[in-house]
Amino acid sequence: MNRREFLFASAVAAAGLTGSAVPALAKQGRRRDKLGIALVGLGYYSTDLLAPALQLTKNCYLAGIVTGTPAKISKWQMKYSIPDKNVYSYSNFDDIANNPEIDIVYVVMPPSLHRDFAVRAANAGKHVFCEKPMAMTVGECESMIAAAAANKVRLAIGYRCQHDPNIQAYQAISRDRKFGAPVLLSSVAGFYDPRSNNWRQVQALGGGSVRDMGIYAIQAARMATGEEPVSVLAQASTTRPAIYKDVDETMQFLLEFPSGARASCMSSFGVEMNYLNVNYERGWLRMNPHSQYNGNKGDMSDGKVIDFFIANQQAKQMDDDCAAIMSRGKFIAPGEEGLRDIRVVEAVYRSAATRGLVTI
Amino acid sequence: MNRREFLFASAVAAAGLTGSAVPALAKQGRRRDKLGIALVGLGYYSTDLLAPALQLTKNCYLAGIVTGTPAKISKWQMKYSIPDKNVYSYSNFDDIANNPEIDIVYVVMPPSLHRDFAVRAANAGKHVFCEKPMAMTVGECESMIAAAAANKVRLAIGYRCQHDPNIQAYQAISRDRKFGAPVLLSSVAGFYDPRSNNWRQVQALGGGSVRDMGIYAIQAARMATGEEPVSVLAQASTTRPAIYKDVDETMQFLLEFPSGARASCMSSFGVEMNYLNVNYERGWLRMNPHSQYNGNKGDMSDGKVIDFFIANQQAKQMDDDCAAIMSRGKFIAPGEEGLRDIRVVEAVYRSAATRGLVTI
Repeated sequence: MNRREFLFASAVAAAGLTGSAVPALAKQGRRRDKLGIALVGLGYYSTDLLAPALQLTKNCYLAGIVTGTPAKISKWQMKYSIPDKNVYSYSNFDDIANNPEIDIVYVVMPPSLHRDFAVRAANAGKHVFCEKPMAMTVGECESMIAAAAANKVRLAIGYRCQHDPNIQAYQAISRDRKFGAPVLLSSVAGFYDPRSNNWRQVQALGGGSVRDMGIYAIQAARMATGEEPVSVLAQASTTRPAIYKDVDETMQFLLEFPSGARASCMSSFGVEMNYLNVNYERGWLRMNPHSQYNGNKGDMSDGKVIDFFIANQQAKQMDDDCAAIMSRGKFIAPGEEGLRDIRVVEAVYRSAATRGLVTI
Repeated sequence: MNRREFLFASAVAAAGLTGSAVPALAKQGRRRDKLGIALVGLGYYSTDLLAPALQLTKNCYLAGIVTGTPAKISKWQMKYSIPDKNVYSYSNFDDIANNPEIDIVYVVMPPSLHRDFAVRAANAGKHVFCEKPMAMTVGECESMIAAAAANKVRLAIGYRCQHDPNIQAYQAISRDRKFGAPVLLSSVAGFYDPRSNNWRQVQALGGGSVRDMGIYAIQAARMATGEEPVSVLAQASTTRPAIYKDVDETMQFLLEFPSGARASCMSSFGVEMNYLNVNYERGWLRMNPHSQYNGNKGDMSDGKVIDFFIANQQAKQMDDDCAAIMSRGKFIAPGEEGLRDIRVVEAVYRSAATRGLVTI
């Protein structure tokens, strides 16, 4: 029994799992039908969402970690039976190229670091999952896509909602024109962030409500129309200027689509809100919430509802994406999809800065 | 029995009303504890809403009509027992000054005519009810207020929603800061208008979605904050340019309030939508619908609901306003309140025309 097997067995024993209840992984060791994922960045999202989800996935497992905080390492190793050889710092991260147990590097860092780590991962020959927002600029997104292509690896964006059957139903209803074309919609996403020292509040780290929450409002509008916006009119505001010194606490922005459809969007770190209301030519659809971790649901003008069960969004996202890698199939949300949103995000910030209409 | 009494008795008989079921008015004739209202303009709103409501009012009754369409006269006289002497055309309208049975003139015409008829009514010594939008410009509103003051008559705006207990509950919750101050809100109002020849589609008559439906979105935002907006950013659009040649089919507009609160508003003649979502500092309130003729209702973050019964908005509005006249009390929505909204409407149109931020 090597160190990893020992730790895993200990954890299984500690959890009271025996016999048939022992996960397949423990009995079979590492299998090639499960891809090994290394999480880069062990903040809240990795700790509370992705790592637990990786205990539920069929097509992948948590194989390694990359962190700039040494104090986190032993806890993660104990909890998830991660061997020393699969633990990296930000400085020796590129050595991951030599680790056959790591198939995928999942970048879960502040947005300003996405490009660098995604490109380094691709250059190390690893497939790349990258959290949203994909990067700071369209140019960064393009360099990530280019790095993946040059290294013949895959690049997917962590758009968990696109793997949620509730959102997929919304997409399908819109795409299939159940109620005709969309005409006017409102999509908003926000939460109240009580912190004053988070990366979300620092421009240099990729903060700002549009990048973090506005992405969901943009996604909802793009899903409704199946189009890319051609103009943006945006206005930023804050109720806590001492905290939101150089990023937007709240953004209101209007999108125009080629078909003539219009969207009114809002994102915020100041208020809890998460809904979308779409008026199509011959009916309406609303979801509340539409982009949360669970409970997304909707109803429509024909009285029908959208309310599918999904056990775990992030697990389904990673399983879907790993299945696509193993089958050489398409990603639901490849890098090109992430880039489309960043193009809008850039326009929103440009409009807010110039207080004028920005055409894309 | 004079002509009016004869007609009324005939109508009562035709309706199968006898004995104690006969309305008080029939037995007692015109009483001074009911104010006589003359409706100016016999379109849909007078025909389908106000006249029926005036059969339910306690403090007023339908005493006269003013119309530019002679063909409508006999039907209205028959249906509502209106004597010849209480029927006016637009040209002899000023003679209403000599008619003691008319206490109030209710202007229910396309908005571009509001100012002229309201001023003429005031100069005739009559109290004035005026439908929303109050007028085309702030200047017109001011001249209406001045005319009422100069003639020592009262001027109320037909803001039926402000008489609806559901909206009053929303106002009170906002005013009393049940959830703290409002931070961010969305309020929208629209309907699909299939017509192509309505005054709503003609700028010269006071058309445009902001004047007709946007008023409700503006009211909702002003009620939440208890403040007047200080800036507006607006964008007009249409999906039917052949019909909406010189007015907005749809308007998206953002309001900034002195406290820092922000509103995202939409109005439209292209889609059915009627909701408001308010995020306060410590909770939220939503209403859907929030400005319809009936069924306005809401819920809140504390699990409580707003769902009061109201038999007839317009009847309550006119009864409230007539009670205020008789008691020399305050109107819920005097001319000054109508003017506040027109100030915002003007700014919305100016912003849409200049594609830039307009400060108020």
